Amino acid sequence: MRGAPLIGVAAAFGIAAEAHRVASRSETDLDHALELAARRLETARPTAVNLAAAVKRMESVFRGQRDTDIGQRVRELLGAASEIAEEDRLACLAIGKNGADWIASRLGSSERPITVLTHCNAGVLATAGIGTALGVIRTAATTRRVAVLSDETRPFFQGARLTAWELIKDGFEVTVLPDVAAAATIASGRVDVVVVGADRIAANGDVANKVGTYALALACRANGVPFVVAAPMTTIDIDTRDGSAIPIEFRESEEVLMLSGPRRSPAGAVSFRIAPDGATALYPAFDVTPADLVDAIVTELGVSTPPHQTPLARFAALAREVAVAR
Amino acid sequence: MRGAPLIGVAAAFGIAAEAHRVASRSETDLDHALELAARRLETARPTAVNLAAAVKRMESVFRGQRDTDIGQRVRELLGAASEIAEEDRLACLAIGKNGADWIASRLGSSERPITVLTHCNAGVLATAGIGTALGVIRTAATTRRVAVLSDETRPFFQGARLTAWELIKDGFEVTVLPDVAAAATIASGRVDVVVVGADRIAANGDVANKVGTYALALACRANGVPFVVAAPMTTIDIDTRDGSAIPIEFRESEEVLMLSGPRRSPAGAVSFRIAPDGATALYPAFDVTPADLVDAIVTELGVSTPPHQTPLARFAALAREVAVAR
Repeated sequence: MRGAPLIGVAAAFGIAAEAHRVASRSETDLDHALELAARRLETARPTAVNLAAAVKRMESVFRGQRDTDIGQRVRELLGAASEIAEEDRLACLAIGKNGADWIASRLGSSERPITVLTHCNAGVLATAGIGTALGVIRTAATTRRVAVLSDETRPFFQGARLTAWELIKDGFEVTVLPDVAAAATIASGRVDVVVVGADRIAANGDVANKVGTYALALACRANGVPFVVAAPMTTIDIDTRDGSAIPIEFRESEEVLMLSGPRRSPAGAVSFRIAPDGATALYPAFDVTPADLVDAIVTELGVSTPPHQTPLARFAALAREVAVAR
Repeated sequence: MRGAPLIGVAAAFGIAAEAHRVASRSETDLDHALELAARRLETARPTAVNLAAAVKRMESVFRGQRDTDIGQRVRELLGAASEIAEEDRLACLAIGKNGADWIASRLGSSERPITVLTHCNAGVLATAGIGTALGVIRTAATTRRVAVLSDETRPFFQGARLTAWELIKDGFEVTVLPDVAAAATIASGRVDVVVVGADRIAANGDVANKVGTYALALACRANGVPFVVAAPMTTIDIDTRDGSAIPIEFRESEEVLMLSGPRRSPAGAVSFRIAPDGATALYPAFDVTPADLVDAIVTELGVSTPPHQTPLARFAALAREVAVAR
């Protein structure tokens, strides 16, 4: 499971599914089972804050359930998960609109063809909607030609495998970049804007996203190219002061050192090792881009520009009001 | 064939080998054959200047040959190629010493254990000696513990496949980084110095090297980590004013989009595609790091620090004197 918003949605449905499982077995201790499920789910991935946010919201539902009818409780939980998914779908649409508008205002036209570089996958395979970064790209493409440069995104090639796939399906012209070529391509003048998603955004605007994002932001700043982060409010963690407090998930050496092809043969995927025996790998799955390198944080509630502290706090307060009203 | 200095050495031996081939066939038009070989070799790869330099030097040998005995001419050409290789071997030793000394002076000790990050492969598989960047690492390791972080270096994984291999063989502790993780690792404080090789250095100190180098230099500058380029004088192209005049080789899409394993099976290498049909890739094999991001250019004749123009001109004049005296 991947894609910060979709991880949150999946966790919500996971809790609903657990309720359904317990109900179908006629077990009675639903509360215990759901608490256990919530604990397991919320610790499954440390970096994306959407996961914790979705689990917390589902908790507030099942802990507050007054009805003793287990079938009714399951229906409520499924309803709550569907609501989270639907909110994410709508957030993507609003992010797309806000991001496309910001880019048009920054680039001085909403019709001139542009080239957007993105990293990893923040599209329909990472959200419950049209995507965050790819939502912005899709919305921009409704008024102008948008060519896409997609970082391949080692080690899992989400950029080559997923982003290229979903955008080509939508009719985009997609060029894959080896990650190493992104900075040179930005320096070459070929890139009008870089748009990426996020796994967690701290209160000060520091952005944790798929590792490799930080280098893109540095290259953008050095070459005067706008660097845009698109994410729903569920990704903004107003309780985390800055990026240094965001837990970064380190993953196994073998995920870097073994390459695996598609699982098409009966024998399973072909795979081979790219390093000699004795070599290990260091693989932080995410990195933190300092807030001052982020020209715009695009949310469904508006666009934050530096310094991000104040607008993000305002958006977060607004999001809380919306949640209370819900 | 890869590794800028070794490409030059190989071209020199290529011309000697062509002389040998022509001689063994009792053909008489040696001059014509050598001119043809020189033209083919010098256009084989555009970026590394060592190739053009070695071909030019071999030309000056075969064009100046007075002896009409073809066997004698072959021996002279083989001698000249061996001389180029031997000079490269000695240059690596001097680069190693100069680089290790500079690092010791910059890091304030020659004994404290350090971690060096490198990119691609600039070692025994890229030179006729102990390497340029890896020569510096090997020499530094004679007085201190040196742990090495090796960027995997997509798309051919020279860092994982070659650098890790040759350094582990030498007893180094080598950790492979996915290229995307280099900037975050530099920002984490884990890296004391970054040392890379070069394919061509312009008169102003702009450095063309394996694509991905520029992003490392940006990350070093943003985090106060010294960025060092190690290269023999044959890599310095005093006739190229700056990086914008260095021709960058673009390579085929498929080199990025197809992954190939080792050729161990009778059927050849296993390979698979990482992108959907319709995706193409943009693959500049090199990038240019602006001179002001390069804290030291380490040559066999000394270390240049910014602004590089004057020291590089001085080294180049010295190198010409040495060549004339030879």
